[in-house]
Amino acid sequence: MKARVTIMLKNGVLDPQGKAIHHALGSLGFSGVDDVRAGKIIELDLKDGTSREDVEEMCKKLLANTVIENFSIEMEG
Amino acid sequence: MKARVTIMLKNGVLDPQGKAIHHALGSLGFSGVDDVRAGKIIELDLKDGTSREDVEEMCKKLLANTVIENFSIEMEG
Repeated sequence: MKARVTIMLKNGVLDPQGKAIHHALGSLGFSGVDDVRAGKIIELDLKDGTSREDVEEMCKKLLANTVIENFSIEMEG
Repeated sequence: MKARVTIMLKNGVLDPQGKAIHHALGSLGFSGVDDVRAGKIIELDLKDGTSREDVEEMCKKLLANTVIENFSIEMEG
């Protein structure tokens, strides 16, 4: 089974990486973008018997910084 | 309209970040993980009239390194 964890900065937290990408897109002539937010995606290949709760625990303990980041988990297959 | 770009390393390309996360999870006692792959997610807030083709162009020119990375685009709303 696979789990896909998406980690994004919370609303209101400054995102310098997103700002830099936005600026770079503008420099390249892509003017049709209002805002950019950058985040992380972590795909986990799980052994049988590893549950969504385990993945949530991993997010809270290691993968995400819950002070400034939100995470969401999708289980696949 | 929003576009969500997911960028992952191609299969076969070494992923040291994923390896480090896998190792760290093991150290914390999470033994139910077989493999970890790390990637990026970029959320674009698009102006009206910006099409999926434009976003594809942005990916090829700036967001993804197509030599070692695959990208996928989801349009929302």
